[in-house]
Amino acid sequence: MHTHIITIGDEILIGQVIDTNSAWMGQQLNAVGIEVTEISTVSDTRNSIYTSLQHAAERADIILLTGGLGPTKDDITKKVLAEYFGVDLVFNEEMWARLQGFFKQLGREANESHREQCYLPANCTMLTNEMGTAPGMWFEKNGKVYVSMPGVPYEMKYLMEHEVIPKLITQFRTQPIVHRTILTSGKGESEIANLVADIEEGLPDFVKLAYLPSLAKVRLRLTARGEDEGFLNDFLNKKVVEIENKLGDLIFGYEDETLELVLGELCKEKNVTIGTLESCTGGLVAHRITSVAGASAYFKGSIIAYSNELKTNLLGVKEETLAAHGAVSEATVIEMVQGGLKTLNTDYAIAVSGIAGPTGGTPEKPVGTIWVAVGNHENVKAVLVKGTKNRLKNIERTTGIALNILRKFILKY
Amino acid sequence: MHTHIITIGDEILIGQVIDTNSAWMGQQLNAVGIEVTEISTVSDTRNSIYTSLQHAAERADIILLTGGLGPTKDDITKKVLAEYFGVDLVFNEEMWARLQGFFKQLGREANESHREQCYLPANCTMLTNEMGTAPGMWFEKNGKVYVSMPGVPYEMKYLMEHEVIPKLITQFRTQPIVHRTILTSGKGESEIANLVADIEEGLPDFVKLAYLPSLAKVRLRLTARGEDEGFLNDFLNKKVVEIENKLGDLIFGYEDETLELVLGELCKEKNVTIGTLESCTGGLVAHRITSVAGASAYFKGSIIAYSNELKTNLLGVKEETLAAHGAVSEATVIEMVQGGLKTLNTDYAIAVSGIAGPTGGTPEKPVGTIWVAVGNHENVKAVLVKGTKNRLKNIERTTGIALNILRKFILKY
Repeated sequence: MHTHIITIGDEILIGQVIDTNSAWMGQQLNAVGIEVTEISTVSDTRNSIYTSLQHAAERADIILLTGGLGPTKDDITKKVLAEYFGVDLVFNEEMWARLQGFFKQLGREANESHREQCYLPANCTMLTNEMGTAPGMWFEKNGKVYVSMPGVPYEMKYLMEHEVIPKLITQFRTQPIVHRTILTSGKGESEIANLVADIEEGLPDFVKLAYLPSLAKVRLRLTARGEDEGFLNDFLNKKVVEIENKLGDLIFGYEDETLELVLGELCKEKNVTIGTLESCTGGLVAHRITSVAGASAYFKGSIIAYSNELKTNLLGVKEETLAAHGAVSEATVIEMVQGGLKTLNTDYAIAVSGIAGPTGGTPEKPVGTIWVAVGNHENVKAVLVKGTKNRLKNIERTTGIALNILRKFILKY
Repeated sequence: MHTHIITIGDEILIGQVIDTNSAWMGQQLNAVGIEVTEISTVSDTRNSIYTSLQHAAERADIILLTGGLGPTKDDITKKVLAEYFGVDLVFNEEMWARLQGFFKQLGREANESHREQCYLPANCTMLTNEMGTAPGMWFEKNGKVYVSMPGVPYEMKYLMEHEVIPKLITQFRTQPIVHRTILTSGKGESEIANLVADIEEGLPDFVKLAYLPSLAKVRLRLTARGEDEGFLNDFLNKKVVEIENKLGDLIFGYEDETLELVLGELCKEKNVTIGTLESCTGGLVAHRITSVAGASAYFKGSIIAYSNELKTNLLGVKEETLAAHGAVSEATVIEMVQGGLKTLNTDYAIAVSGIAGPTGGTPEKPVGTIWVAVGNHENVKAVLVKGTKNRLKNIERTTGIALNILRKFILKY
């Protein structure tokens, strides 16, 4: 069973936008045993879309299109699909009622171009897009499935998760593929690989182990294929236990969990409150903590003390400490934690101060020198993180490290 | 003249790697007037590569392949190309001499698998890759050019810059393509489209206008093609002025600028300081401001007052205000700004408080009800943002809106 993704949009062809949609779709489809065999990016012109549909239909069973469905004139996917299937565009009352409700909720009114969006090819099944105005459209012809989705990533993701993947799984019998993902933080890919080398060497042919590194995180993904799903599940569960025995508290979670989610669950379980004191991470640690629904149960707040003035006034960092050691120092982050615990009135706090770059380094403290301290009212612990010259990468990586340090500290103290 | 990029690699199809090569190639080619009309990503199997070559040759004049040229066994592009052109693989002495020298310089020795790499299709012109061991290969057949390059980004980039683009420019008389991108915030895609409808309708055939919406932002991209680059530039410059006259301060920047960058430039120009007071955005406004290198020149800090206790203690929001109007209210965000200006000691401050969701709404204040206030020591202004039920989307969209409101306020007051 072959799947072909067609991404429509000149912005990708001229390199203004990188196509991350297809990679995400490839991951999700793969996880349910649907193999993507080709990805095409084509221009938003009638001929390009039409030809790519013909080309895909020659070889694929499932054809997924993204892009070209908005309310403006450059969006022509819908018209080309109607032409391709030899059907008319028909006004969809259900969709029009939904759009009017959608805009009413936003305190606005649906306009003529939104009304235009409600004309859909006669042979399509509409897939409701709760994230925006353009619907998903599902077509079947000669045993093949065609799905058209908007190109806006969160709209496409919503439709894939809630509509497209469940329908595809029902319609196509796929050979079981079973995955287990183990999430680690604290060591790099090759160190993790060394720790589990024995397990990896002993794996049978039907199991694959992949390392998926990203900033402050390495995911280990076990994939097993075969006829007997129960056997595959049992086998992978055993391997997960073996890996847990090797990696210990380097493992922070499983599957789609995030550090911030696991941290939040831990805070709820222990009934403790947390806060952050941030300089170079500029609020990203707080943002990640509060991206979890219900974070207000344990997260009280943060102080982003970018200037030394605020480090002193709000966090009580001593002027002598700043003068003697500088804002980027072990002594400063420790005082930030101690002051922050009082100012925010929390059980735990984490502080970050560093030189994110790309400039601002000195021979003693090069760009990428970042201090992290974590503590409660009894203990404080500081860690030096060494980064690169890339500002955003330093900020994002340190944020992950800080969340993991806070998690391990709460587990221990 | 059509150009087709073929990217070879299973790692892209399963979403383990995002294809950034094609976007870079699209940018570079576009800049010299060579239009990329399709990008295909295919599996590294003989059939996939062969079929994609046939398919590309039906419609493109230039076919650029990346990937599948390394020394390991899964790299078969070279063999498929020899088969496609009906030629043998021939040992290339010049390349072997170069590889031996290359490894000698690294203090190592070329091995058997490197020697294997020196067998090239008989009809190819070798392009020297100074960055690695796999060469570029240039083929011509029936007036079409085929180029094969390694998939490693810096090796591909070296070959494109030093060999491929110069040769393509010489061989194909290219037609200039000129772009202008106008960045707006504050209205949706269809509202923007309505405002510039007259201009869009009057555009000649050689100019295209595309709308690229994302959260709290719509980009307008004008593309012109023709013989006379100077004329095209003049024409687009005039159109940009016409659009500026229609959209006014909805426009926040041009080309690759971001809201946070433009805001930072404005603060430096006016020599003012800013800070943020955040509840539901949880630090994301501060993070975006501090993602700009050099933000410490104008950004002093933030208070993330997630709990009411901190809104009162750190920002001086009155308990009566919270009791009478709630934390998500016009009165509260206004007091947050007033208190924040004092606590942070900045010239301007912006405050956000809302119900990000997915739960926590009431009939009077449904999920997605978000108040934003902005002010200096003389004026404060509040705005109600209505969002959806999606937590992260609400946070990200409100952050964009807040940055834009702050920008407009500083411009005005």
